[in-house]
Amino acid sequence: MVQTTKEACVRTAEQYLEGLRDAREVYYRGERVDDVVAHPELGIAARHGSLDFAFAEENPELAIAEGHSTYYHVPRSAADLRRRSALIEQATAFAATLVVLVKEIGTDALFALDRVTSGTDTHGRVEAYFESCRDGDLALAVAQTDVKGDRSKGPSAQADPDLYVRVVERRPDGVVVRGAKVHTSCTPNVDELIVIPTRALAEGEEDWAIAFAVPVATPGVKLYCSDYLHADADPWTRPVSSKHKMIETLTVFDDVFVPAERVFLDGDTRRAGQLALTFVEYHRFTAVSYKLPLVDALVGLALALAEANGIQRASHVRDKLVALVGYAETVRGLIHLAADRCRIDEATGIAYPDPMTTNIAKWTFARDYHAAVEKVIDIAGGLLVTGPAGDDWRSDEIRPVLEKYLAGAVPAAERLALMNLASDLLAREYAGYQSVLAVHAEGSLEAEKLMIARSYDPAPAVAYARKLAGL
Amino acid sequence: MVQTTKEACVRTAEQYLEGLRDAREVYYRGERVDDVVAHPELGIAARHGSLDFAFAEENPELAIAEGHSTYYHVPRSAADLRRRSALIEQATAFAATLVVLVKEIGTDALFALDRVTSGTDTHGRVEAYFESCRDGDLALAVAQTDVKGDRSKGPSAQADPDLYVRVVERRPDGVVVRGAKVHTSCTPNVDELIVIPTRALAEGEEDWAIAFAVPVATPGVKLYCSDYLHADADPWTRPVSSKHKMIETLTVFDDVFVPAERVFLDGDTRRAGQLALTFVEYHRFTAVSYKLPLVDALVGLALALAEANGIQRASHVRDKLVALVGYAETVRGLIHLAADRCRIDEATGIAYPDPMTTNIAKWTFARDYHAAVEKVIDIAGGLLVTGPAGDDWRSDEIRPVLEKYLAGAVPAAERLALMNLASDLLAREYAGYQSVLAVHAEGSLEAEKLMIARSYDPAPAVAYARKLAGL
Amino acid sequence: MVQTTKEACVRTAEQYLEGLRDAREVYYRGERVDDVVAHPELGIAARHGSLDFAFAEENPELAIAEGHSTYYHVPRSAADLRRRSALIEQATAFAATLVVLVKEIGTDALFALDRVTSGTDTHGRVEAYFESCRDGDLALAVAQTDVKGDRSKGPSAQADPDLYVRVVERRPDGVVVRGAKVHTSCTPNVDELIVIPTRALAEGEEDWAIAFAVPVATPGVKLYCSDYLHADADPWTRPVSSKHKMIETLTVFDDVFVPAERVFLDGDTRRAGQLALTFVEYHRFTAVSYKLPLVDALVGLALALAEANGIQRASHVRDKLVALVGYAETVRGLIHLAADRCRIDEATGIAYPDPMTTNIAKWTFARDYHAAVEKVIDIAGGLLVTGPAGDDWRSDEIRPVLEKYLAGAVPAAERLALMNLASDLLAREYAGYQSVLAVHAEGSLEAEKLMIARSYDPAPAVAYARKLAGL
Amino acid sequence: MVQTTKEACVRTAEQYLEGLRDAREVYYRGERVDDVVAHPELGIAARHGSLDFAFAEENPELAIAEGHSTYYHVPRSAADLRRRSALIEQATAFAATLVVLVKEIGTDALFALDRVTSGTDTHGRVEAYFESCRDGDLALAVAQTDVKGDRSKGPSAQADPDLYVRVVERRPDGVVVRGAKVHTSCTPNVDELIVIPTRALAEGEEDWAIAFAVPVATPGVKLYCSDYLHADADPWTRPVSSKHKMIETLTVFDDVFVPAERVFLDGDTRRAGQLALTFVEYHRFTAVSYKLPLVDALVGLALALAEANGIQRASHVRDKLVALVGYAETVRGLIHLAADRCRIDEATGIAYPDPMTTNIAKWTFARDYHAAVEKVIDIAGGLLVTGPAGDDWRSDEIRPVLEKYLAGAVPAAERLALMNLASDLLAREYAGYQSVLAVHAEGSLEAEKLMIARSYDPAPAVAYARKLAGL
Repeated sequence: MVQTTKEACVRTAEQYLEGLRDAREVYYRGERVDDVVAHPELGIAARHGSLDFAFAEENPELAIAEGHSTYYHVPRSAADLRRRSALIEQATAFAATLVVLVKEIGTDALFALDRVTSGTDTHGRVEAYFESCRDGDLALAVAQTDVKGDRSKGPSAQADPDLYVRVVERRPDGVVVRGAKVHTSCTPNVDELIVIPTRALAEGEEDWAIAFAVPVATPGVKLYCSDYLHADADPWTRPVSSKHKMIETLTVFDDVFVPAERVFLDGDTRRAGQLALTFVEYHRFTAVSYKLPLVDALVGLALALAEANGIQRASHVRDKLVALVGYAETVRGLIHLAADRCRIDEATGIAYPDPMTTNIAKWTFARDYHAAVEKVIDIAGGLLVTGPAGDDWRSDEIRPVLEKYLAGAVPAAERLALMNLASDLLAREYAGYQSVLAVHAEGSLEAEKLMIARSYDPAPAVAYARKLAGL
Repeated sequence: MVQTTKEACVRTAEQYLEGLRDAREVYYRGERVDDVVAHPELGIAARHGSLDFAFAEENPELAIAEGHSTYYHVPRSAADLRRRSALIEQATAFAATLVVLVKEIGTDALFALDRVTSGTDTHGRVEAYFESCRDGDLALAVAQTDVKGDRSKGPSAQADPDLYVRVVERRPDGVVVRGAKVHTSCTPNVDELIVIPTRALAEGEEDWAIAFAVPVATPGVKLYCSDYLHADADPWTRPVSSKHKMIETLTVFDDVFVPAERVFLDGDTRRAGQLALTFVEYHRFTAVSYKLPLVDALVGLALALAEANGIQRASHVRDKLVALVGYAETVRGLIHLAADRCRIDEATGIAYPDPMTTNIAKWTFARDYHAAVEKVIDIAGGLLVTGPAGDDWRSDEIRPVLEKYLAGAVPAAERLALMNLASDLLAREYAGYQSVLAVHAEGSLEAEKLMIARSYDPAPAVAYARKLAGL
Repeated sequence: MVQTTKEACVRTAEQYLEGLRDAREVYYRGERVDDVVAHPELGIAARHGSLDFAFAEENPELAIAEGHSTYYHVPRSAADLRRRSALIEQATAFAATLVVLVKEIGTDALFALDRVTSGTDTHGRVEAYFESCRDGDLALAVAQTDVKGDRSKGPSAQADPDLYVRVVERRPDGVVVRGAKVHTSCTPNVDELIVIPTRALAEGEEDWAIAFAVPVATPGVKLYCSDYLHADADPWTRPVSSKHKMIETLTVFDDVFVPAERVFLDGDTRRAGQLALTFVEYHRFTAVSYKLPLVDALVGLALALAEANGIQRASHVRDKLVALVGYAETVRGLIHLAADRCRIDEATGIAYPDPMTTNIAKWTFARDYHAAVEKVIDIAGGLLVTGPAGDDWRSDEIRPVLEKYLAGAVPAAERLALMNLASDLLAREYAGYQSVLAVHAEGSLEAEKLMIARSYDPAPAVAYARKLAGL
Repeated sequence: MVQTTKEACVRTAEQYLEGLRDAREVYYRGERVDDVVAHPELGIAARHGSLDFAFAEENPELAIAEGHSTYYHVPRSAADLRRRSALIEQATAFAATLVVLVKEIGTDALFALDRVTSGTDTHGRVEAYFESCRDGDLALAVAQTDVKGDRSKGPSAQADPDLYVRVVERRPDGVVVRGAKVHTSCTPNVDELIVIPTRALAEGEEDWAIAFAVPVATPGVKLYCSDYLHADADPWTRPVSSKHKMIETLTVFDDVFVPAERVFLDGDTRRAGQLALTFVEYHRFTAVSYKLPLVDALVGLALALAEANGIQRASHVRDKLVALVGYAETVRGLIHLAADRCRIDEATGIAYPDPMTTNIAKWTFARDYHAAVEKVIDIAGGLLVTGPAGDDWRSDEIRPVLEKYLAGAVPAAERLALMNLASDLLAREYAGYQSVLAVHAEGSLEAEKLMIARSYDPAPAVAYARKLAGL
């Protein structure tokens, strides 16, 4: 029987927003922010974050499992992974192509921590922490990418040892950490911050082999928000980005004390690398799942704009439409398959998506994203960047001119609504945001290629070639 | 319990070969061929054809189902389609990357005939014919592609009405057909020839709306073989193509009488188009299944050659290897998914692979095949086309020179064996054969794009885009 | 001897700006603009327009020819075209990658008008107009692209005949025109507006076969500006777009009277199509010339960012750098060649760049632009969209944090300056502007392909193939 | 005044062929060859080689300069390089798309030797040798690529030191060399063999830093021919490759004595690398020049086949045709530009094509060749590999059947002639030969990318980017 949000341990959107009002140290555009919910721009991000909760209220059969948010449901089968993927996809569609990410990434990290610490002393801490997050239906951010300094050097070879987050003091009751992470998404509007290593570490780099979690409002945790998505919030020209926003932070740990029960890994360089990779195994699966509404929107926009412009029967347009469909459905197909081909971690019984298939899906998405965008731009036309302002459209004097002259094969109101959506998704800041994320988020194209190489078993193909060669 | 070939209605390779010795009218390189099995070149094709039978003897658990060849097993579920795909893939691997195709394509056509004639008068004929083929474990060819003449015109607009196969006389006991089909594979070494239309037909084109089957040895059926794969049969330089061959024919119907019980469609132009497409639905699934050993061989060769040349750690080589793996596994993944997403024909209960996924798989294979070949060529090196002859290698005087100077990071014997395999698969006639087939066999890239467009449901994506646009 | 701007008929930047203060009817963000120079945003565009004049002051040897602006120098040789290309390239580099375009496009149109009207009654009008523009060193915009309505239909088949600009009344002393053009660049900050047809016209479409020029401040000419580039003008995060702007307008002709001496073409449908194409011949050459600073900036940025991030020795980075160099230098090489291969119009002696080479250059630029951008994004990193705000950098409290943590292989100040430039060029509004322009400006990819087909002489290649085939 | 071959120091085709009859030690398919001209297969290659001489007889204005073969004309200007390029292009067109290469590559090496030895003791030897070759109008091969063994190791680190050609003894009157080169083109049918190093060498590798020349018939020089192009010589199905052939050898130096006056470099490791690169500078220019007839043939074939099949108006066909034209003309344009941008070697006054432009031209050719081939295959159709044999066409019984059924929009004789040409160029052994050469000949794609990186001056682009960034 489907549980409603009332019966389950899940919070409402309002409860979530209320929980964000605390002493967290957040900076935006040069100023300390008092209240992230009330803030005109960070508030948009906070309300976007609340959509995970609102979605659950409207879709309990998908979003609630065994009395908790389905995000917290530990996957043990292909069906669990399929459901998780469907939840992420549909919640992102609900959130207008922008992933909500206040539980998605955090649970990816928790599943990874659960598996990697299995059989170690800290496994109990992970489990206790997992339960407290799940039962409190908390919102989580994950800080993984260190600022890294000179990328040709490892943590210990940097001019400044703080360029990777590290332990600067070990006490009986916990550790003190210093350093900074970048690209931490949603930090200003979550409850908890999980911190994990960014890469494999060498012997002698024990101080950088640290994983832990702290409430965002912990003293010494300082969030410097990017204002990249700061822009004119006209909902007519920016139908998506005026209402949906995700904030990334430079997340500084200014000698932050972490109590022992929240330290999940300390000094184990081998497990540090394992944790980084295990997290990524889940997180790329999450990533492809949440890219699906965006690629669907590209396909749908291309179809709708072709019709609005009266060019849907032009042969080059049909060719581009097929390429877009092929792209979108290849990515979707591969991520479904990654779930269906899931593997079960022996030690814990936790399921994870097939790494090779997941990475091929992500690589396919990222490799062809820019070409897909270009095709939709081609179909849309130059009006994407030469169209009128919202104030023009709302002007009684100007609007009739636009209605007369910017009509296509459909009325101007319809054509311009589609054009504005396209401009938002394909040309403006939000487009650039998605474009850069396509290349870099959840690991770069190069990282995905590396993982494909690692997860592919070459033995059968080589044996077959050698047999054909008579060897 | 697995049945062995002895218990089941399946023939041995010898029985199959014996069955090919009849009055069939076959021409090769300007001459009438008396005995296709004894012929030095057609015999290679015949023995290649026999591998479907030999494979069944060795792999009854996969190749025999309910007392018959699994090829004849009518698919009714995803599992059936997966098994069929696995059989085709493994039998092709057994046959050294060249599909055997003496039952694969024929059963594709039979399933299509079964579905399309369902509810019509001729359905019983199809079923009777199917059972006789299955029970006799017959080998089948399918002639679909008409010679077409001027491709900008349909059958009825051609200067010569015979450029599409057509009925020239209707008698009470059957029909007389005239015309020719091209690209008919394996015709000289099968028992039966199934003939189906190549395209949708218009009203007034009833005479071209004809589907039927005849034994190959029927009077008036004349097979003009292509000698494209005629070449030096040195097994050292051509480890695959010297032993494996498929023969295509120009298949002429010189006023051939077809008895009524073997006429499956006559005059129904609507069903003619339906039959063409339904056949293709199965046949592209078959096609991608049998391409997998070839793409695996490319990957395996690239890996083995990189090592043989001592370049496996070069960064550009690793990059190419990943791209090859991504290609091979995307194609494999999509065809698995096409089976898993199978649909069930309502009228007959027969399963068919998801058309969109099948066509995306085929399109991906065909679109990227040449780039994949180029990558393996890049890794292999120029020796592909400047290497020694088999007679050089077998010469006591010359071989030591080759052993000294053509060694790589492995001995010359091993490196040259791999190089020769690569030359066979990537550069020589067989390579060209595969290269052209990649573009044209089972429908061109353009045909696949058309089917992707047709089988994709645009409504959800358009609705989503419109919702995002506020429409 | 090189003439200085003082001796020649050229205006200063100030004179140009002063000339923009008249009764022109300009709308921006819903409001009528009184003074386009004083306006906070349109003023940026006006000052950007003034760079053509400022550049001439600093570079008279290139920018002044025979006593006038070199833009007005009618090309009669390859050397003239090379000089024009160099002027456009260097002026655009001076203007920080954004073409100035207040003389470039206008003279493209004037050369085309000169050639196409040669031998007709209106040729003298064109010449007189040309001289007045040249001698007054006027700034010019060109309105070509009609709003077009339903693109599957021609002008006469539209629901509203005004969707292509047309003559609604012919008087002895001139004509009255109605309709609208889109994508008109720089209109608010030029002196004169030249209007030409957008496409070939059929018989019966004489009213749409109209070319003319009017001062921007002509009654009935209404300019509705796009506010696409309206954005936060922080010069730290947007080093280029905060200071450089081009404004496109929807240019409405609300029953505008054009005196006879300014009507260059009226009713000649054949010449209308010719004029559209001849203009484009020049304008694509202009376009590729002004794209060079942008592609150079991509290459330079990629190199500088690779070093700033410490990844310049990573093999995938080197591979991307070479691809960028190959792209930039192919485009540059082809446009040089288009000038060197120039042709001379027989009737007028005016030179024009080789159409095939020009279109291949433009097609190459446009086809590969998005892939080039993607490569630079790949090298830059995610900080492109997660970096700090200008107010952060200017904050005494926050800047030290950024200096400590966002340093790379170079200090943070340097790395962030490069990152901000990259964000401006590759991700933000200006990036989207360039991205859409790459596909659509000066004709779409499809239009360029069409022109390649038209300007290529197939006879030699076909004759050669036939000879090889023994035909 | 144009000199005819009679007045100039040039030989006739017959004289050239006569000169090949000597004691040279040539092996083909396991047998020693007595007379390379009389040999049924090597004779084809010899007669192909004679086309350079026959071409000169027919085209003295292009092929003869100042009394000698134009190939021997030392380039001192852009015009000289353009003429050299035109000669190579037209001679290759004359030779049916297969470069003749009996003077092209040899003079590339001579120009390089001239420049690199300038100022050294051996420069006089080079000049004397050059003059003797020129005055005798000799045919030359160049052996550069060592067999290399394990490519991850340099010459001195190989298990067998002979895997790079080296000096094994130094005598007062000359040196003794041992080792082997691969991919040496035309060796069996030239007079002289020039040997140069394949790569930069390190200190301690002096013995491998050797360049010299010997007559092919020198004792100890053993040529092991590749039989890759050995095939059915039916001129109907193979209109090009049945008559044109180039033979590559494994060229073994079995303790060959080289007299001092023919030793051009010995022990100078720095100049060894310089020589390898300088040769390549010329040879890639030669290479692109001789690829032009092949790419023209692809374009011409595509156009002719589209018409023969009746598909020239299909939109996807037009799209492919434009892509082919764009490809062919970009390659041609860039190599013209490489000549126009030539540089002059300061020490010798010898001109050389601009290295960056040459390498971009070669990279463009190689990078897109396979995609171009695929497009022509797409237009041609499956008949490429399923068509009839020459014996079928010559059979009185069968030919009428083929004429009836294989007609397209043109008669079968014409369509099949084009189809056979296409099969020869795109699918059969010769196609594979060209396909592998596209990737590997005259340096691989990776080598070209390396040279683009080296020859590009990054300073201006970086300075521009930094200036834009405010640095």
